[in-house]
Amino acid sequence: MFESAELGHRVDKATFRDAVPALRAALLDAQFELREKSQFPVIILISGVDGAGKGETINVLYEWMDPRYLTTLAFSAPSDEEAERPYMWRYWRALPPKGRIGVFAGSWYSDPIRDRIAGHLDQGDLDRRMDQINRFEAMLANEGALILKFWFHLSKEGQRTRLKTMEKDPRTAWRVTKESWTRLKTYDQLQDAAGHVLRMTNTPWAPWIVVEGTDDRYRSLTVGRVVLDALQKHLAGTRDPGYPVAPPLGLKHDVCDVLTALDLSHTLDRKTYETELAQWQGRLSELLRSTAFAQRSLIIAFEGSDAAGKGGAIRRIAAAMDARQYQIIPVAAPTEEERAQPYLWRFWRHLPRTGRAAIFDRSWYGRVLVERVEGFCSEADWLRAYAEINDFEHELQESGAILIKFWLQISDEEQLRRFREREKIDFKRFKITAEDWRNREQRPAYHAAVCDMIDRTSTGQAPWTIVEAEDKNYARVKVLRTVCERLENALRPRKNKDKD
Amino acid sequence: MFESAELGHRVDKATFRDAVPALRAALLDAQFELREKSQFPVIILISGVDGAGKGETINVLYEWMDPRYLTTLAFSAPSDEEAERPYMWRYWRALPPKGRIGVFAGSWYSDPIRDRIAGHLDQGDLDRRMDQINRFEAMLANEGALILKFWFHLSKEGQRTRLKTMEKDPRTAWRVTKESWTRLKTYDQLQDAAGHVLRMTNTPWAPWIVVEGTDDRYRSLTVGRVVLDALQKHLAGTRDPGYPVAPPLGLKHDVCDVLTALDLSHTLDRKTYETELAQWQGRLSELLRSTAFAQRSLIIAFEGSDAAGKGGAIRRIAAAMDARQYQIIPVAAPTEEERAQPYLWRFWRHLPRTGRAAIFDRSWYGRVLVERVEGFCSEADWLRAYAEINDFEHELQESGAILIKFWLQISDEEQLRRFREREKIDFKRFKITAEDWRNREQRPAYHAAVCDMIDRTSTGQAPWTIVEAEDKNYARVKVLRTVCERLENALRPRKNKDKD
Repeated sequence: MFESAELGHRVDKATFRDAVPALRAALLDAQFELREKSQFPVIILISGVDGAGKGETINVLYEWMDPRYLTTLAFSAPSDEEAERPYMWRYWRALPPKGRIGVFAGSWYSDPIRDRIAGHLDQGDLDRRMDQINRFEAMLANEGALILKFWFHLSKEGQRTRLKTMEKDPRTAWRVTKESWTRLKTYDQLQDAAGHVLRMTNTPWAPWIVVEGTDDRYRSLTVGRVVLDALQKHLAGTRDPGYPVAPPLGLKHDVCDVLTALDLSHTLDRKTYETELAQWQGRLSELLRSTAFAQRSLIIAFEGSDAAGKGGAIRRIAAAMDARQYQIIPVAAPTEEERAQPYLWRFWRHLPRTGRAAIFDRSWYGRVLVERVEGFCSEADWLRAYAEINDFEHELQESGAILIKFWLQISDEEQLRRFREREKIDFKRFKITAEDWRNREQRPAYHAAVCDMIDRTSTGQAPWTIVEAEDKNYARVKVLRTVCERLENALRPRKNKDKD
Repeated sequence: MFESAELGHRVDKATFRDAVPALRAALLDAQFELREKSQFPVIILISGVDGAGKGETINVLYEWMDPRYLTTLAFSAPSDEEAERPYMWRYWRALPPKGRIGVFAGSWYSDPIRDRIAGHLDQGDLDRRMDQINRFEAMLANEGALILKFWFHLSKEGQRTRLKTMEKDPRTAWRVTKESWTRLKTYDQLQDAAGHVLRMTNTPWAPWIVVEGTDDRYRSLTVGRVVLDALQKHLAGTRDPGYPVAPPLGLKHDVCDVLTALDLSHTLDRKTYETELAQWQGRLSELLRSTAFAQRSLIIAFEGSDAAGKGGAIRRIAAAMDARQYQIIPVAAPTEEERAQPYLWRFWRHLPRTGRAAIFDRSWYGRVLVERVEGFCSEADWLRAYAEINDFEHELQESGAILIKFWLQISDEEQLRRFREREKIDFKRFKITAEDWRNREQRPAYHAAVCDMIDRTSTGQAPWTIVEAEDKNYARVKVLRTVCERLENALRPRKNKDKD
């Protein structure tokens, strides 16, 4: 991986002086076009060995481009708000919007490499992390992002020389710390770990660019040209699609599926309903106040066709909770700032801290439901969404979040009845719009989309609970009972950790 | 303040049962209209003595209204991200956008009242804080917000009885903590402090509503009706303008003002420029790495007419900084999420943590410059902006932020020359738009606006530095030197704290 970065690449002063003005002008032009078009974000990762020019490279980018539209993100120890959320949350919140360039000084690679060197991560765990990263970057690339990952390399001897030179110069001496010298001792381990990581994550959609760090002019010119070339190609739309898109699903439209198999005749009489409702609400309230929950978080996602009773079910859960402890997130059309980010960003931003809950009224499944059926996104987009959603939910669970997903199902006839009933009520808020009637006509398409969704995203850790919602009482109690049981199960102390 | 809240107000069961359905329907309708129109946010503060029904009131609001568009914000100890920013930052980030209702369980009143009781705040300091709060709430009201501040009251004996009752019921026992009983002992001090605070902040634009907390039905009905009435009135646009708007400024257009008095003939030759630039950049770099700066933050605001050289000056400052330490914030048209918030929100969100810097390329002064001249806001809006901006900057300084403001001034002729020069350059990014030419025609109006701005917002702590920018070299060095000198002065250890 690093062989050609130890050849002593150099650029002489005259060549450099001749090349820079045109390069800068071209970079500024490309950046201007990026900003004007605002079609994609640029993510530049700056990594490598100490003294190989990471800081200098960032300075060069700032000098050669318009610094107002560059953002540099540095990541040291996570803040408490970050530590109480899934691992990737701090990177999601730092993603540049479309039209901007985000320079990551430190990234999602820093911890895995450091942990591997320190021996906190075995080879298998490391590979699993790299696999997650590949999928994350593929998602970004599929969302249109241009990703450039730089690794600045020095030979061991080269690094020693460089650190000594820097220490002698009062302008750079402060940058050589005790840790720099300590890390020089683990140079070989770093090369092993980094080499492995770079090979595993050197994908067509997010390639590594290894740059020799010995000569400042060579390094700057290389970075400048790589950034320019990639920017120009991406702007011209010639980028490699990269990520292999799955073949279209073979959709069946037969009469036997998870929805048609449901028994919608379940009911619950008023008296039983009231008793059970109070019982489960009391239980839920207790569970959320338990000390075990203080270290976890709860995320509930509600999906269901129009008038299936999502709002009513949510209110029954909310009634058992402390308003200071949860937020309800009604998912509607994305805002301008959300549209400038990858699809899942709008959900990441609402993830709760530990000890808190978020209830999503409609969710990230919109991509494979309404967006698929209405054609709001391309087929490739919703096809890849299944895997991206599974990755997302996996990350939630790894962080200790308890995720519960509901699909509320009612029959065609019951939906019609509820629409008509709503039309009779004079509260404006229940008005049935033309859109609702239009959605009804799409029921077969939604039906197929829901079956695909459940098949493809019901996992052992995050199963779908399909709720027979024909009878509201029955549905509400089933929802509450499910929430309690899933919470109880998740909060129960494990006797045998290995079996987890 | 609390006299009429100790009369034993009660509502009997039948009255309550009769009143609630219509009240709920009306509340839902009003909330629906609020959401559809999205013209203003609603801020409901919930405060009062323990056991007087704060939590119950929040539950009632959630039960009677649509919980999806309610957000409850609870404030305990600040997170580290909050602690490193001005005091009010955590409240600004929690403000509900237009069309939504934010319920504040705990608010900007909690700390002052608690600190006053604990003796950490003397009467003078408390009054100063209340004055700040009045100005903050006036700003919110002027931005259109509906603010309702509830105080739930119990007599001392009433509170004791209430706590005992709650302790006996297993459903509420958990809410009575050791602190509840401790606080009962300081009941009289709380009444004194809260009474004073309520009287001082009982403004027409953000009134206190004191509610007796003994009877659940009375309390719920009162809150529901107050919220409904206020919502309906605000929606109907009949709200009291409240905040007294200053009379229009008597603008002078004579030839003698801070701008015409400038000597624009200053120049700096290339050689001196390069020496001084390097010297001040080195100094700046040192200052920002100093341990004293680690506990402060730096905010630089650049204003100036088109082509005055803001970008160039910013690049010269940026060149001396570590990219991981600062952000440049180019201020352009607000995003949708920003338009749904008070004017200053878009700047609050970018405030740096300690040890970091933010450079604003155009700033919060847009309100009294471009928005005033182009008529993007009403006269009342920009007139009140002077005071709001002074308040904002005062809060920045109180938090330890170092604020430096520059106005870059060039002559009419020099601007014309630079426009023509830019038109000749083929880099697209320097294109001169029709808007730039149009702005030029407004130069007299801008001139008057700048003079007013400097007069009204140059304070001892946050003075404007007017930069003669006719010669770019001179301007850049003056900017850098000013930044260094202001930083040095701010970071110098004070020998006599009293004189500060």
